Amino acid sequence: MIKGIGHIGIFVSDIAAAVESLCKTFDLETPAIQDVPERSMKIAVIPWGAAALELVEDYSDDGAVARMVKERGSFIHHFCLLSDNIEIDITNLQSNGAQMAQPEPVLGLRGKRTAFIQSGVLDNVPIELSEP
Amino acid sequence: MIKGIGHIGIFVSDIAAAVESLCKTFDLETPAIQDVPERSMKIAVIPWGAAALELVEDYSDDGAVARMVKERGSFIHHFCLLSDNIEIDITNLQSNGAQMAQPEPVLGLRGKRTAFIQSGVLDNVPIELSEP
Repeated sequence: MIKGIGHIGIFVSDIAAAVESLCKTFDLETPAIQDVPERSMKIAVIPWGAAALELVEDYSDDGAVARMVKERGSFIHHFCLLSDNIEIDITNLQSNGAQMAQPEPVLGLRGKRTAFIQSGVLDNVPIELSEP
Repeated sequence: MIKGIGHIGIFVSDIAAAVESLCKTFDLETPAIQDVPERSMKIAVIPWGAAALELVEDYSDDGAVARMVKERGSFIHHFCLLSDNIEIDITNLQSNGAQMAQPEPVLGLRGKRTAFIQSGVLDNVPIELSEP
């Protein structure tokens, strides 16, 4: 079952600067910035009330995320829905007509199983499912 | 005090289609679509777990939102933080060095007092404060 909104995924040009600025402005506890070298990405999660911000920097030269951020600057890329049984939820979404970008869950940057819904449900706004 | 993430603000090209598609795909209760003719905008709020989606369509020909959506399609524009005392929170943010786009709260589409933080805290990602 889909439990609702879990996090907001924001692609940023400089994760260290973004974390510092956010935490200074809002008096937030500074989160760890995790490096995922096999993906050339860094990630930080800031729980904030009942949901969270997920900041991602792609420090490769020509990765898809790096290219998007070069083109338009830091931006909100997706929102993520929490699923307590991702296989069943994918099947239910497919029954309702949704196309999955990933019909089988894949391991996300945070080590959780996730799957993106193909663009189309909300125009081109990316929607992610994830284990909690 | 800022209580955390309240909603995700998504600008859409066709709010009726977006609401129908989301509710069909995710078996959600269909929300009311509210017309705000003095702003040439329609708005729908979909509570989803602990946070909410706020869909906004600008049906004017040349409004700022309409122009952005024409250029890039529907997209996630901002996230909103809930504040239980918006004047005090604005003052605190300013003390921490944040520039407000709206130093005094203004009435948002939903009739709540809101204020956007000037771009810069999280690069150009818009961040809104709002009464709950």
